[in-house]
Amino acid sequence: MTRRAGDSRLSCRPIRGTILSASRVLSALHELLGSRGLLPAEAVEERYRVDVLGQRGEAPLSVMRPADTPQLSAALALCHAAGVPVVTQGGRTGLAQGQLPQAGEIVLSTERMTAIEEIDADAATATVQAGVPLQRLQERVEPDGLMFPLDLGARGSCTLGGNIATNAGGNRVLRYGMTRELVLGLEVVLADGSVLDGCKPLLKNNTGPDLKQLFIGSEGTLGVVTRAVLRLFPLPADRAVALCAVEDFECVKALLRHVRGVLAGELTSFEVMWDSYYRRAVPLLGRPAPIAPGRAFHVLIEASGADPALLAAGVERMLAGAIEQQIVADAVLAKSGAEIAELWRVRDLAIEASRQLDPIVPFDISVPIARMGRFVTEMQAATRAVDARCDVLVFGHLADGNLHVAVHAPPDRPDSFHAIERAVYGLVGRHGGAVSPEHGIGWLKRAYLGHSRSPAEIAVMRQLKAALDPRNILNPGRILR
Amino acid sequence: MTRRAGDSRLSCRPIRGTILSASRVLSALHELLGSRGLLPAEAVEERYRVDVLGQRGEAPLSVMRPADTPQLSAALALCHAAGVPVVTQGGRTGLAQGQLPQAGEIVLSTERMTAIEEIDADAATATVQAGVPLQRLQERVEPDGLMFPLDLGARGSCTLGGNIATNAGGNRVLRYGMTRELVLGLEVVLADGSVLDGCKPLLKNNTGPDLKQLFIGSEGTLGVVTRAVLRLFPLPADRAVALCAVEDFECVKALLRHVRGVLAGELTSFEVMWDSYYRRAVPLLGRPAPIAPGRAFHVLIEASGADPALLAAGVERMLAGAIEQQIVADAVLAKSGAEIAELWRVRDLAIEASRQLDPIVPFDISVPIARMGRFVTEMQAATRAVDARCDVLVFGHLADGNLHVAVHAPPDRPDSFHAIERAVYGLVGRHGGAVSPEHGIGWLKRAYLGHSRSPAEIAVMRQLKAALDPRNILNPGRILR
Repeated sequence: MTRRAGDSRLSCRPIRGTILSASRVLSALHELLGSRGLLPAEAVEERYRVDVLGQRGEAPLSVMRPADTPQLSAALALCHAAGVPVVTQGGRTGLAQGQLPQAGEIVLSTERMTAIEEIDADAATATVQAGVPLQRLQERVEPDGLMFPLDLGARGSCTLGGNIATNAGGNRVLRYGMTRELVLGLEVVLADGSVLDGCKPLLKNNTGPDLKQLFIGSEGTLGVVTRAVLRLFPLPADRAVALCAVEDFECVKALLRHVRGVLAGELTSFEVMWDSYYRRAVPLLGRPAPIAPGRAFHVLIEASGADPALLAAGVERMLAGAIEQQIVADAVLAKSGAEIAELWRVRDLAIEASRQLDPIVPFDISVPIARMGRFVTEMQAATRAVDARCDVLVFGHLADGNLHVAVHAPPDRPDSFHAIERAVYGLVGRHGGAVSPEHGIGWLKRAYLGHSRSPAEIAVMRQLKAALDPRNILNPGRILR
Repeated sequence: MTRRAGDSRLSCRPIRGTILSASRVLSALHELLGSRGLLPAEAVEERYRVDVLGQRGEAPLSVMRPADTPQLSAALALCHAAGVPVVTQGGRTGLAQGQLPQAGEIVLSTERMTAIEEIDADAATATVQAGVPLQRLQERVEPDGLMFPLDLGARGSCTLGGNIATNAGGNRVLRYGMTRELVLGLEVVLADGSVLDGCKPLLKNNTGPDLKQLFIGSEGTLGVVTRAVLRLFPLPADRAVALCAVEDFECVKALLRHVRGVLAGELTSFEVMWDSYYRRAVPLLGRPAPIAPGRAFHVLIEASGADPALLAAGVERMLAGAIEQQIVADAVLAKSGAEIAELWRVRDLAIEASRQLDPIVPFDISVPIARMGRFVTEMQAATRAVDARCDVLVFGHLADGNLHVAVHAPPDRPDSFHAIERAVYGLVGRHGGAVSPEHGIGWLKRAYLGHSRSPAEIAVMRQLKAALDPRNILNPGRILR
């Protein structure tokens, strides 16, 4: 950093020096971005400070809202030169607190970069700016008979830039993959403001390391996603849904294998509910259970395809084979859209079913499928070792290895919360799982990163951070302490 | 690097210093790896120096063949400490000359690391060592009703480590993706010998940047792939194949869209032959053409699935719709395995058809589908501007954006070879394509990297190389000069 003559006294007063240089940066940013593009501290609304769970960050120095990539690039170059840290925000729907401002940070919001620049229906690609809400892209391509398959509860407010930065998962990963697999090209602005324009709509491009992969899922710590070319898929004409009761975990695994073989590319969902979940969810339906509780597992299977008749024939064939091979004890097949909605409602009651165990410690984890049965048994034992009254409810996207877990923590023992977390994340680590399959690390799970990543892996993460963001201005402190 | 007292004289004679320290490294490597694990220069067979096209590298200092990851790690640590460069070899089937030894390099061969460690049929994963030949894994999982979908001509000798390091593509990318999409977990040894053990069989793992992506497709320049967890898929029971004649490129794009919509997850191939290819290939069949030449394009479409009857119904429905919408002028559907083989033979005559234009300049490139029609027209004009006798033959995996091109270069003008290369790669760059969709950059295409990557992208590649391989010992000079 070059120091000007007038600054010489500040060199021994680093704190005041930072404040002064930050105020200079703010006026330079104001000149660059104008009043619409730079909100002063006093005009920063509450929404820039809170997440959907009500967690609250610090008051930021200001909010910058560049109109396009050149503005964003110039703004970051200013922050980089002055060493002022920046926290990037898309729709602020992240669940790992990475988007909450920390003291001394400027919020960088992509909320004015909202153009869907191009839909190429023949190539099945969309070129978008980072601030486009997910649902807007979904709705924009539907009339063309196309689908952007990423889908999650926050679809109305989460942004595509945020989805990419966090490698969002969601409801259709089994068939279409995580966000990473939906990104063909990416434009990223680096910490120093330089623009990596990799917005090519190419499925095949083996010309050196695939740089975009560095920025997908690194939660804004290595660069700011500004534009992307995304893959689109044909909108399936129809779907078929079945619910199966299964006696033990070996049969659940056999069913997954059978379903994959028969439905192949049409399999969209394979949701497994442990009885601990199912018997709490069905009474909330307000009507008779599609299958009475009592079996160890209930599995919801969905297939989607272009031809309703062929699709139905495939799912019926799958069910017949599963019953004949005695891997399924009982099954129902939805006969209408209303019945499909009813079957899905069992799975969609997740929040209500979990609440019956309040107060709970919630987990979103992944574990290798081969170890999953044992993992759940050991988790029950490990949490009961913390307190004999702990009770565990489990369901998840089994084919993805992804489990949602709610552990009842006795209300008279608030200290048990962290003990339960340590017990479960410790088991996840020992079984080679991931402490965060979908939501990222952010601030929330930094303490548990070592359960999923080795010291050698964390050392490389630090090397990458030092190489690409040497002044540590991009989302500092997220992922790595 | 620490220097011992006895070495002090060498510090001003770097060349002799390197030779001496290399000989010390070789004796330390011999101690570490034994006679089976370290071949001295005089015992290095020709096969370690040549590629399948007959290109020949320099004589290496030796060939090291570690038995496992710990040995490989210790060997690399020794090379790193001494600054001795290493070139990693799998099956040596690469087409970009990256595997050919350069002067002063030690060959690191994975040919003794050939264990298929585990097949998990329920989770549909395989854990393998880097030296396993692709075909051995394919054949190992078939009896379990599973498939490792990567497939390419070199299957018998190429290794999975090499496939991963180069992000191999091949025949089934449209349905299953490039190698990158088939890798769940990866173990990599870094230049200094440290081991990144990321061998988790997880589809979902958002715990910091996805480090394995750095090593997939970076051609061994950032680390050495030693083990991997790979995705398997159900082996399709049957396939259906059709050949369609199409009048213009707009209809080819419409056909792709139509086929994607109807066949969705069952579409496996969409191979487009320009008439310049088709009219040269069909006379080589030795029997009547399935469709007589004359139309501008012929498209070979394959679908595969679990149920032969449903599959055939889907393909028939697709063809009926395409003919009704007048995007297809003529079509034939294979009625047996023999007819399927016959239709594929038109496409598999690629080498023979191209030879009719000998001498040729061959290209493997990708171009955005939206620009492909114009690209081919401009390429014809650009090569004819080099020499009026230039003639262009085109075919390719259109849905992947991947084109194979052969340009006739007049034999009396050998100077035209490079002029044709410059003309075609220049057009690829201007149309936002890739100069190497599949085979990588290696040594062969370094001069053209700038047509596919911007200066900012190349600068980041250099930063990554400097951070992860500061002494430049891993495949030095490949990709980046």
